[in-house]
Amino acid sequence: MFESANLGQTVAKEAYEREVPALRASLLDAQYDLFEAKRFPVLVIIAGVEAAGKAETVQRLNEWMDPRHIVNHGFLTPSSEEAERPPMFRFWRALPPKGRIGIFFGSWYTMPILDRAFRKTSVAEFERSIDEIRHLERMLANEGVLIVKFWFHLSKERERKRLKALERDPATRWKVPKRSWEFFRHYDRLMKVNERILRETSTAEAPWTVIDAWDEHYRELTVGRVLLDAMRARLAGQAAPTVTAPPINPRVENVKLVRSLDLSQRIDKAEYDRRLAKHQGRFAQLLRGKKFDGRSLILVFEGADAAGKGSAIRRVAGALDARYYRIVPIAAPTDEERAQPYLWRFWRHVPGHRGVVIFDRSWYGRVLVERVEGFCSESDWMRAYDEINGFETELARNGAILCKFWLQISKAEQLRRFRERERTRFKRFKITEEDWRNRKKWGAYEQAVADMVDRTSTDHAPWTLVEADDKRFARVKVLKTIVDRLEASL
Amino acid sequence: MFESANLGQTVAKEAYEREVPALRASLLDAQYDLFEAKRFPVLVIIAGVEAAGKAETVQRLNEWMDPRHIVNHGFLTPSSEEAERPPMFRFWRALPPKGRIGIFFGSWYTMPILDRAFRKTSVAEFERSIDEIRHLERMLANEGVLIVKFWFHLSKERERKRLKALERDPATRWKVPKRSWEFFRHYDRLMKVNERILRETSTAEAPWTVIDAWDEHYRELTVGRVLLDAMRARLAGQAAPTVTAPPINPRVENVKLVRSLDLSQRIDKAEYDRRLAKHQGRFAQLLRGKKFDGRSLILVFEGADAAGKGSAIRRVAGALDARYYRIVPIAAPTDEERAQPYLWRFWRHVPGHRGVVIFDRSWYGRVLVERVEGFCSESDWMRAYDEINGFETELARNGAILCKFWLQISKAEQLRRFRERERTRFKRFKITEEDWRNRKKWGAYEQAVADMVDRTSTDHAPWTLVEADDKRFARVKVLKTIVDRLEASL
Repeated sequence: MFESANLGQTVAKEAYEREVPALRASLLDAQYDLFEAKRFPVLVIIAGVEAAGKAETVQRLNEWMDPRHIVNHGFLTPSSEEAERPPMFRFWRALPPKGRIGIFFGSWYTMPILDRAFRKTSVAEFERSIDEIRHLERMLANEGVLIVKFWFHLSKERERKRLKALERDPATRWKVPKRSWEFFRHYDRLMKVNERILRETSTAEAPWTVIDAWDEHYRELTVGRVLLDAMRARLAGQAAPTVTAPPINPRVENVKLVRSLDLSQRIDKAEYDRRLAKHQGRFAQLLRGKKFDGRSLILVFEGADAAGKGSAIRRVAGALDARYYRIVPIAAPTDEERAQPYLWRFWRHVPGHRGVVIFDRSWYGRVLVERVEGFCSESDWMRAYDEINGFETELARNGAILCKFWLQISKAEQLRRFRERERTRFKRFKITEEDWRNRKKWGAYEQAVADMVDRTSTDHAPWTLVEADDKRFARVKVLKTIVDRLEASL
Repeated sequence: MFESANLGQTVAKEAYEREVPALRASLLDAQYDLFEAKRFPVLVIIAGVEAAGKAETVQRLNEWMDPRHIVNHGFLTPSSEEAERPPMFRFWRALPPKGRIGIFFGSWYTMPILDRAFRKTSVAEFERSIDEIRHLERMLANEGVLIVKFWFHLSKERERKRLKALERDPATRWKVPKRSWEFFRHYDRLMKVNERILRETSTAEAPWTVIDAWDEHYRELTVGRVLLDAMRARLAGQAAPTVTAPPINPRVENVKLVRSLDLSQRIDKAEYDRRLAKHQGRFAQLLRGKKFDGRSLILVFEGADAAGKGSAIRRVAGALDARYYRIVPIAAPTDEERAQPYLWRFWRHVPGHRGVVIFDRSWYGRVLVERVEGFCSESDWMRAYDEINGFETELARNGAILCKFWLQISKAEQLRRFRERERTRFKRFKITEEDWRNRKKWGAYEQAVADMVDRTSTDHAPWTLVEADDKRFARVKVLKTIVDRLEASL
């Protein structure tokens, strides 16, 4: 990967000064086009060896373009809010919105590289990190993010020279913290790790540009030109690299999953009161326990209209102290959410330690309503299964316990509830024209649900199909499922 | 304050059960009206003595209404992000948006009460906290927030009985942490502090309702009814209590402040290069120093169109490592911002320790463009001076160093720059129809600037008027001002 970056690329000062004005004007022009169109964001990742001029180059980009529309992120020590969440959380919250350029110094590459080079992780763990990064970058690219990655390289000899020179000058000595020499001592080992991760993450949708970082003029011009070309190409309408959705098994007759549910199951009032109280009590107790330290609980509720999501959520929340849970109703995205990749609006609600978040509808909207109504393209919802599995894996690996519920009712029961709601004054906002429209697509929803369950029910985030014609039965089943899962997980 | 709450108010079980269905239906109905209209948010503050049933009552409200549109907040230990910012930061970020009900358990009352009762603060500091709270609540009310505050009271004897009873039952023992008895031992002292703060913060715009918290039926019904009445009254169009803006000095001929600036001041190129480099170097050095620990820097740039804000900001940013500053350009608010009180969108950018935030336009929009263009009512911008001073005081008290710049150019120089910009390709987005319109209101802006400087230039957040007909002069003055201020403050 580093061969051409060891050639000693230079640009003479005069050539640099001749080139810069035009480059700068073009970059600024492209930046304003980007800002005006607000069609996509640009994410620039700057990584590489110590003292290679990364900070100086970022400085230059901010100088050449309008720094007011650039968001720079350093990623130093994580805050407590970040430390309690999956490692990718802090990067998600820092993503630039459409129309802006985000520059990440340090990124999702830093920790996997250092952890492997200093033997804090095994080869297998390192490989898993690489997979996660490829997965994330593919998703971002598919969501329209233009990803431009630069690796600043110095040969071992030049790295030594650079560090010595910086140390000699009192004005630049602060730029060489202890860490720099520590890294230098392990140059070869680091380089092996770097080589591997660069090779495996240099993909069509997010390629690396390795920069010979010795000569500042060469370094700056190259970064500027590569960034400009990438922005111009995308602005000119050149599509993001098409990424095929992960392969899909031939359709099996899986709609039975939904149709074969026994919706006649019922619980009488006395039994309901007894069992609900029991499960609620146990639920509250489990969440108060020591074993819940460092963990969190994420509940997802999906279901047909009028299937009783709201009332089930109420029974779940009813067991808990209101200070410790949060219900997130998912409706139309806000404009800040619309300017970001699809999963961004869910990442922002990921709970910290001992947190409980209840999603009333969720990221599954993409493979349910958006699929059925054609709000997104087929390739968008097809790739979503894999993206969602990745997201939930990150949550689970960070200690989250996930339960996902699909509440199913019969068509006849739905009609009965629609009619009843129309009669009841304080339920009036629950029944809309849209509900009647959705009802006509019953079969398409059944198929979408079956596919969703087939493809996203995993060990660490299983789906539970809830027979909900009888609300009491449904609520008890939901609570019992949560309690069982907590007992098994804590 | 507590007399009637010591009377022993009760409601019989039968009466309670008779009342609840109608109350619940009405609350739900009001909640949906609120949600549908999205005209204002409701903030419910629940405070009071230990073990008075606060959590249970919040639980009940969540049960009676639709919990998906209620946001409950507990305010336990602050996160590191919160701990680095002014105490009010965590409450601002938790404010409910228009259309929602936010329930604060614990609030801006908790710490001032405890700190005073346990003698961690002086009477003077306690009084200052009271002032801040009155100030904040008045602002929120003026911004349309419906504030409903409940204080749960128990007499000393009943508090003792309640704690004992909870402790006796193994199922409720966990509800009595050590803290509860510790507070009980200081019951009288706490009550004196409570009495004072309640009295002084029971204002027309945010009155307290003191609840006799012994009987759960009484407690719940009363809270429900008071909340319902408040919501109904506001929904029926009853205006928020009108609050007179703080008294204003009769207008003095202050426009001279702006008009008497000597815009002919110039610096030649050589002098500029020398001084700019000197100040930039010193600036970078000061921010790297140990003394900046626990501090932050907030820069505000305002100015006429084409006055050179952007290029001044660029010179300031140019001195710094891009990882450590953030430029926040203020344009039209997003819909999440529009659903919140005016200052919310600025609070979210308040920096943590060692942070630098540069605002390109700012909260002064309200007393500049919004005033001149009539985008807000006169009473809105009149009260803004006082609100802004309060905001900046909080920032400064938390260690922020503030510098505010108004860049002034002559009308002739503005015209010259407009024309130039129209000719230059990569500056094309900088000149709009609006700029030409604003230009016609030159005099009104001069008056607005003079009033702004008069009323918001304070010791801890002074305005600097910058003569900006010569860009070099302006940039050097800006940087020198920042450096001088940092040197004086660190």
